[in-house]
Amino acid sequence: MVREFDLIGRYFSREVPEGYIGAGDDCAVLPEQPGRQWVVSTDALIEGRHFLSDVDPFALGHKSLAVNLSDLAAMGATPAGCVLALALPKIDENWLSKFSDGFYFMADQHSCPLVGGDTTGTGHGIMICVTVFGHITPGTALLRSGAQYGDDIWITGSLGAAHIALKLLQGALPANDVLLADTRAALERPRPPVMYAAQLAGLAHAALDISDGFLQDLGHILKASKCGAHIIFDNLPVDPAIRNLPNELMQEAVLSGGDVYQLCFTAPQRHRNAIETLARQFSTMVSRVGVITEGNELVVETLSGRRLMPSQLGYQHF
Amino acid sequence: MVREFDLIGRYFSREVPEGYIGAGDDCAVLPEQPGRQWVVSTDALIEGRHFLSDVDPFALGHKSLAVNLSDLAAMGATPAGCVLALALPKIDENWLSKFSDGFYFMADQHSCPLVGGDTTGTGHGIMICVTVFGHITPGTALLRSGAQYGDDIWITGSLGAAHIALKLLQGALPANDVLLADTRAALERPRPPVMYAAQLAGLAHAALDISDGFLQDLGHILKASKCGAHIIFDNLPVDPAIRNLPNELMQEAVLSGGDVYQLCFTAPQRHRNAIETLARQFSTMVSRVGVITEGNELVVETLSGRRLMPSQLGYQHF
Repeated sequence: MVREFDLIGRYFSREVPEGYIGAGDDCAVLPEQPGRQWVVSTDALIEGRHFLSDVDPFALGHKSLAVNLSDLAAMGATPAGCVLALALPKIDENWLSKFSDGFYFMADQHSCPLVGGDTTGTGHGIMICVTVFGHITPGTALLRSGAQYGDDIWITGSLGAAHIALKLLQGALPANDVLLADTRAALERPRPPVMYAAQLAGLAHAALDISDGFLQDLGHILKASKCGAHIIFDNLPVDPAIRNLPNELMQEAVLSGGDVYQLCFTAPQRHRNAIETLARQFSTMVSRVGVITEGNELVVETLSGRRLMPSQLGYQHF
Repeated sequence: MVREFDLIGRYFSREVPEGYIGAGDDCAVLPEQPGRQWVVSTDALIEGRHFLSDVDPFALGHKSLAVNLSDLAAMGATPAGCVLALALPKIDENWLSKFSDGFYFMADQHSCPLVGGDTTGTGHGIMICVTVFGHITPGTALLRSGAQYGDDIWITGSLGAAHIALKLLQGALPANDVLLADTRAALERPRPPVMYAAQLAGLAHAALDISDGFLQDLGHILKASKCGAHIIFDNLPVDPAIRNLPNELMQEAVLSGGDVYQLCFTAPQRHRNAIETLARQFSTMVSRVGVITEGNELVVETLSGRRLMPSQLGYQHF
């Protein structure tokens, strides 16, 4: 109906690689991946809920794809492509151009070409829906249900910075420009360890991406795998930018802060060396933070044996 | 953040078939399709733009998937699965239950299981984003660019009813309950010829689904295939419900009415019998409505030789 919105499409029709058929037909066509199995994930980002209306459009484009790539990483999948549905209340070519640049930046970096989409006007706020496809060796998907007793628990990247940035932007913490500058990239430009994760098949037993908060997301693995966990707080990768915050705030950010888009995975002890060697190869930081236990309890202790109370930190026991 | 919206997911977590891994992990996993190539399409439906807020939720669920299945049909693809992102301003369990029933009705009928999704609250109107996946024999996708000089032009189903229903609902035509009853299903519950279309590979040269209007969509084939067309108006499948409307209104509905979700395809003359035999097998109505010509002109004539003026009917010459 609204022809002018066709022009939105212009910002999302860059050339696709050999073997793909991209936008312009009824469907996109993906290249064959003989002997591989396809995986898929979809995520919607809604203005006012997942992002603020004045967010930097480059960062928003980046993040829209990053949160989906994070889901592929959590399965150990190799990205193969994505589609984007975008509903906008008005056409702002400057905004579109920057959003598109941010999106393609992530797409190019992860060989995840944008192959199609749908653009429309809306009387409401901005709505972004990204669907990503990837492939895996059949049967090697890293499920939440695969954790086994005695597995090490690993985390990629660091924890807590995105949570602090969000609180600063919401005015829930006293303004602090230095702290915001140090933490904002974690919130607005997450960098899921996609390449590294695609190598974890055969090494890791279970994985997910940390989006709601470390304890809560780890809880999903424990529930699906019917096991417990013992976490050593001192081994958690606290983001350097938040290390000097008051202890309680720092702990909350690390244990319960969302928007992390890094992996939590479990793996048998015999793969420690392989996991760390791979991490160096792919310039990915990994931390071994605890072990999978029998039962269904989630215990967080300091090295000195002081037990933290996860229940007070947003963790819902199941 | 908004935990209560997790319950939306309950309406969309029916069991998936053997070989699939559905909702509950970071990605869905699709069964292998050896020797096949994957295709994908995404469509967003926005309240107030693509549907009215008081639309029957069963019909909306049905249509949300139907418009996407129509894209698969237009490629000649076999459905393999879909994901749904749904943003709702409030939780209305009655609405959700009916929407879910309508969605699953289409999904079951076309063996296109819902394998995952994302549900969220929104301060704005309802937003529905569906992404479908299908597979084809490599190299057999029915593209818009495949039409050849001398090809017959075919249409499945009938034209015009959805357009009239929309005008009635919008109050752009005088209220007419009988006419609305006869045309409403075409608008609200489109039935794209998915099974039939999946058999057209090797027979048809080009195809697309009619969503914006027959002439405009045929124009996409002509532009992509660098050719013209000669259409005999009398051969167009006018929906019986609108046959007795004033001539001008009927013509507008047939030539320019959108929301059809039937196929327009071209095929060499030698395949006429095969195309019609298949149509009987799959209980699909097909009409041969014209031929592909050299040049780039789109001519619509009556059998008596009177030329209609497509430019006055919403067709933009390219």
